[in-house]
Amino acid sequence: MDEKYMDRALELAKKGIGRVNPNPLVGAVIVKDNEIIGEGYHECYGMAHAERNAIKNAVRDVVGSTIYVTLEPCAHYGKTPPCVDLLIEKRFKKVVIGMLDPNELVAGKSIEKLKQHGIEVVVGIREEECKKLNEIFIKYITSKLPFVVLKSGMSIDGKIATYNGESKWITSKESREDSQKLRNRLHSIMVGINTIITDDPELTCRINKDKNLIRIIVDTKLRISLESKVILNSDKKTIIATTINADGNKKQKLRELGMKIIEVPSKNNKVDLKELINKLGQEGIDSILIEGGGTLNFSALEEGIVDKVVFYIAPKILGGTNSKSSISGKGFSKLSEAVNLIDMRYRTVGKDLVVEGYVEKK
Amino acid sequence: MDEKYMDRALELAKKGIGRVNPNPLVGAVIVKDNEIIGEGYHECYGMAHAERNAIKNAVRDVVGSTIYVTLEPCAHYGKTPPCVDLLIEKRFKKVVIGMLDPNELVAGKSIEKLKQHGIEVVVGIREEECKKLNEIFIKYITSKLPFVVLKSGMSIDGKIATYNGESKWITSKESREDSQKLRNRLHSIMVGINTIITDDPELTCRINKDKNLIRIIVDTKLRISLESKVILNSDKKTIIATTINADGNKKQKLRELGMKIIEVPSKNNKVDLKELINKLGQEGIDSILIEGGGTLNFSALEEGIVDKVVFYIAPKILGGTNSKSSISGKGFSKLSEAVNLIDMRYRTVGKDLVVEGYVEKK
Repeated sequence: MDEKYMDRALELAKKGIGRVNPNPLVGAVIVKDNEIIGEGYHECYGMAHAERNAIKNAVRDVVGSTIYVTLEPCAHYGKTPPCVDLLIEKRFKKVVIGMLDPNELVAGKSIEKLKQHGIEVVVGIREEECKKLNEIFIKYITSKLPFVVLKSGMSIDGKIATYNGESKWITSKESREDSQKLRNRLHSIMVGINTIITDDPELTCRINKDKNLIRIIVDTKLRISLESKVILNSDKKTIIATTINADGNKKQKLRELGMKIIEVPSKNNKVDLKELINKLGQEGIDSILIEGGGTLNFSALEEGIVDKVVFYIAPKILGGTNSKSSISGKGFSKLSEAVNLIDMRYRTVGKDLVVEGYVEKK
Repeated sequence: MDEKYMDRALELAKKGIGRVNPNPLVGAVIVKDNEIIGEGYHECYGMAHAERNAIKNAVRDVVGSTIYVTLEPCAHYGKTPPCVDLLIEKRFKKVVIGMLDPNELVAGKSIEKLKQHGIEVVVGIREEECKKLNEIFIKYITSKLPFVVLKSGMSIDGKIATYNGESKWITSKESREDSQKLRNRLHSIMVGINTIITDDPELTCRINKDKNLIRIIVDTKLRISLESKVILNSDKKTIIATTINADGNKKQKLRELGMKIIEVPSKNNKVDLKELINKLGQEGIDSILIEGGGTLNFSALEEGIVDKVVFYIAPKILGGTNSKSSISGKGFSKLSEAVNLIDMRYRTVGKDLVVEGYVEKK
């Protein structure tokens, strides 16, 4: 039974996708006499937590009931008062928790407090699913670094464009729609300047127009045109990541146009990506979707900043020594240096195969 | 019930894998009073057909029984007398057939003859499976061209070697073992001269040492070293495919060493692969496994000689503009020219993904 209610809480948590970053996705279900009497989730960054919403939505008095919550209730004052105090005040009989707070300094504190007040606590129901749901939050809260997903759509032989640059479209409409879910899930989207020059994309989230998807352009030499769509269409935040040595006048102009300039040292004549994600983390960005060309993709993998990859693979073969590869750059010189992927998942979308995996840390 | 016995006949048919080319794989099961009383399959090229073996192996008198056979019994004198006459002579009551003879000129002839003799005939039980099992035979018998499978083991980004040539091993041991089944299933293996020069492989079937896997080396300019393993180890047949203009002395030397030289015109300064497979078909070769490098792989796809692809994809990323791609060559210039794959199948072997598909004919 616990699993059934926790599954419902997980379902509710997912409704917050696209609106809570850098907060966790949390769902809560209140059960009394084997009946759900209240449901809630964390709906939007800065707004009420899941527990509070579930209590507010309850159709009966919650005293003596059980609450299922995907994440350990908070014990601290943030933008809202601590949920643990609310649960005590409302005299819940039992609290069932999916996973502990990933912040080791506070993990278990709320549980202790609940127990001190005679409330029964169960921990670890659907723990794996709860952790998976909040993989972004877990990384961000424990490291202050954004969770980085590299996404690419390619032919089965790893190509993203023909040798003369034709790239629209290799993957199916269904894949391109599916990949919009990543834009909705993640806090920001990162591309290299070559993608801006070649494709002049808008970099918006088509399935959630309200989503404040932060755009990050990696542009070592500030080659970006002031006429680019990402600059003209400035209702969404755009960050231009460049080097300390880049043209100061251009920086100033871009700032005047509303762009945020982040300056980092250069490494091998490129923006130092490790330094960059450090700074992006400090800016409160909990996650990045890299939709780079092959050069940025390789740099990100080489620098070890990528946590997860998602490849949309079309049942097509392009061939060609000079065709554009999904992961280009210099490449790893030895097989022992290659990026290994683990926890692979395979699924199909339309005619395409979707491969997801996590980068094995070395 | 028909399906159950036909499944058994299919199982039996597969026991002939590796020994019957260019004949079909055929299995037969004899059933009397709901009991299997005889089983057989086509065991080896030139030997008895499945029906004859099943009858020979029967533990009771077959008169009045039902025989299940994956392929329509033959009606002609080949290396053995017609099976249809044997079934009539043995006074079977019923014949259940998986698929018709793929040769349109004779398809249905046996069925007609059986019916004329008052034998009940059922056709099309597990037809799809029977056709799949004999995709090689079906193509070869209807076109006199070999069925061509292109196999490659690669990283998820389509690379078969690092930029400095390290390639052992990208895929797992399990994948490499699994791919030996292809060498057992197919009649011949084809590589380009670059593979011989770089890897000096033996090109044998490790899971069936007795298998007479014919080796085909595509060597436009006859660059092959006389010390290559495929030449020194001459107990298996080796064909060197070259152009009419290649060095006559070297041809002679190779012939003296037991190699078969097949000469075809050149096309774009390379062996004309279409002409080549024509000649290989005339030589009685019903199927080819291409394990080429990227250049041969692309040429084969460009020339339209490939029927099926099998990719072993390791959960690794190599990257690199100058890394070696599984399909290289010039590449297709337009997306509309790309090879489309259909009837895709995905499975995992060890840590790797195996992708199989058929080339969509244009």
